[in-house]
Amino acid sequence: MGDSKAKSDEHSSDSSVPKAVVSRLSLYLRELQHLQRDGHETTSSTQLGKLLGFTDAQVRKDLAYFGQFGYPGIGYRCDELVDAIKRILGTNRQWPIALVGLGNLGRALLGYRGFGEQGFRVVAAFDVDPHKIGSMIEGVPVHPISDLPAIVKDKGIRLAILAVPATAAQGVAEQVVQAGIEGVLNFAPVTISLPKEVRTVGVDLAIELEQLSFAVVSRAQKDADSVN
Amino acid sequence: MGDSKAKSDEHSSDSSVPKAVVSRLSLYLRELQHLQRDGHETTSSTQLGKLLGFTDAQVRKDLAYFGQFGYPGIGYRCDELVDAIKRILGTNRQWPIALVGLGNLGRALLGYRGFGEQGFRVVAAFDVDPHKIGSMIEGVPVHPISDLPAIVKDKGIRLAILAVPATAAQGVAEQVVQAGIEGVLNFAPVTISLPKEVRTVGVDLAIELEQLSFAVVSRAQKDADSVN
Repeated sequence: MGDSKAKSDEHSSDSSVPKAVVSRLSLYLRELQHLQRDGHETTSSTQLGKLLGFTDAQVRKDLAYFGQFGYPGIGYRCDELVDAIKRILGTNRQWPIALVGLGNLGRALLGYRGFGEQGFRVVAAFDVDPHKIGSMIEGVPVHPISDLPAIVKDKGIRLAILAVPATAAQGVAEQVVQAGIEGVLNFAPVTISLPKEVRTVGVDLAIELEQLSFAVVSRAQKDADSVN
Repeated sequence: MGDSKAKSDEHSSDSSVPKAVVSRLSLYLRELQHLQRDGHETTSSTQLGKLLGFTDAQVRKDLAYFGQFGYPGIGYRCDELVDAIKRILGTNRQWPIALVGLGNLGRALLGYRGFGEQGFRVVAAFDVDPHKIGSMIEGVPVHPISDLPAIVKDKGIRLAILAVPATAAQGVAEQVVQAGIEGVLNFAPVTISLPKEVRTVGVDLAIELEQLSFAVVSRAQKDADSVN
């Protein structure tokens, strides 16, 4: 996909915070949630950095965009920092989501538990297929795309997930924006162009596979080195 | 999902390079590929850092794990750095992939173009459903899971994608490892435990949605501030 996780414009569209910093907030949040689950009450920029492979300076610089969270001699209180990051990310509330496109990927995303765990719930699905319209899939009603404006308004939906074919992505993206959607998560393997006040995030799953190929290649290299 | 992109053990299992550094290599690669496409022949740690929201020091420190790539007064040559990163990530070659689980997500991943663009090709699919076994889906043959060892060996497959239900994930993961798989990309919304010589990457799609909620919340905040 042309559109990667960390997009190529330097800053998030309506903020002075670089997008990559916001992306790292999510990683800090997951690590803090793991630390909480393991019974840790406090942590430090050094520990968070080590868990994620960042320098402690990077962690402190990232968090400093949003305020002062540490205590001298203690570090960060996990509960406080989790609450603060959720508030910053906006996930201290529930977000109703519109999903457009009910092919294999769309259906899979409807059943994806990871969204609900972070406060995101797909409340309405949209497709062009008359056989799907009017049905319920994974408990979510399927509507014609022409109903987007009414349903987006009625349900207070601000974010949409696009799981449509590449050829349809730009047109559908424009329709969801006209319906009032403010942020688009694009799974279609093309870059879409939208007004700059609409935030667009593309998903690039090949990045994860690259992590695996690296691990396998670097181990093979290490084995070869230890034989020589 | 419990398993996030940047996993909680500090280092990649068989290397002294932190996992997060490897993850950033993928981001550098995408940005370099975009720069190439836009006709840029050279770049710098400052430019790469700005594109991704990292400090230039972070970019230099990350690349320094793997060698010396810059030229005084020039910076990085995009072509050279793309080739170097692909070689490091192991994506300067084709990787045959096994996909286990042909529900909605598995079928969607079979048709996912982003994998092929980076050198990953699903060559064999596996499922327990007798109606699927023996058929071709998206041009890929579907086998019973019991055939994993023979096919993994025959086709030289080293990486597997799991798109199975949460309840099946651990058992299937153990089967693919027994069949000789060295790296597992897990889409099931559970953390799986495997021998530490097997690299496991979990996919957390909620991170992308958090980027959107942040953008929407921070814009709303900014609008409120400018009214006051």
